[in-house]
Amino acid sequence: MKHVHYTDVELEVPNEEGTKYLKVRWLISKKDGAENFAMRLFEIQPGGYSPLHQHDWEHEVFLLEGKGVRRDKNSEKSIKQGDVFFIPSMEWHQFVNTGKETLKFLCLIPYK
Amino acid sequence: MKHVHYTDVELEVPNEEGTKYLKVRWLISKKDGAENFAMRLFEIQPGGYSPLHQHDWEHEVFLLEGKGVRRDKNSEKSIKQGDVFFIPSMEWHQFVNTGKETLKFLCLIPYK
Repeated sequence: MKHVHYTDVELEVPNEEGTKYLKVRWLISKKDGAENFAMRLFEIQPGGYSPLHQHDWEHEVFLLEGKGVRRDKNSEKSIKQGDVFFIPSMEWHQFVNTGKETLKFLCLIPYK
Repeated sequence: MKHVHYTDVELEVPNEEGTKYLKVRWLISKKDGAENFAMRLFEIQPGGYSPLHQHDWEHEVFLLEGKGVRRDKNSEKSIKQGDVFFIPSMEWHQFVNTGKETLKFLCLIPYK
């Protein structure tokens, strides 16, 4: 069994355009033997955001800390600790930190 | 996109033997269109536990709140908020709430 604290996992700058003040920890991945899905923890500093994008895989998200908004191409809605999101394949999405603390959320993706 | 707070999702008694003071919220499942993996949130009251068991699928776990221990057939180790666990297929495991607050953790499983 892998058993670590999330802060023990490296906080990396992702190789992805359209982000600001965003870093990621790959908590569980293929390196650990996970073959079906990966668990990442994103940390976004105040004023930062994930890209406004779409792709052909889903996200399962749990918001751990902080406040912000989620956006698609037309609308915006506030998000808070304990919120859960299922983002289906090809749906536009973005997370923005509009608060004063770090926004932290888990985002899981399939391997397939 | 599904967007709910975790407390809005029903807290159910699971149909599983060997548990004590344990309930589950199915946050994201096939009902939501999730075809690859499911996100559940378990809540265990003080003194309670999940079953000591093994099975042929993996778990990806993130501990949200509370304190306790994890056990296999031979050993025990303390667990705390922010801990991450990858439990491979067929590995024995159990989570026990040894604290005074509710133990809450996310546990994700594959659909296959």
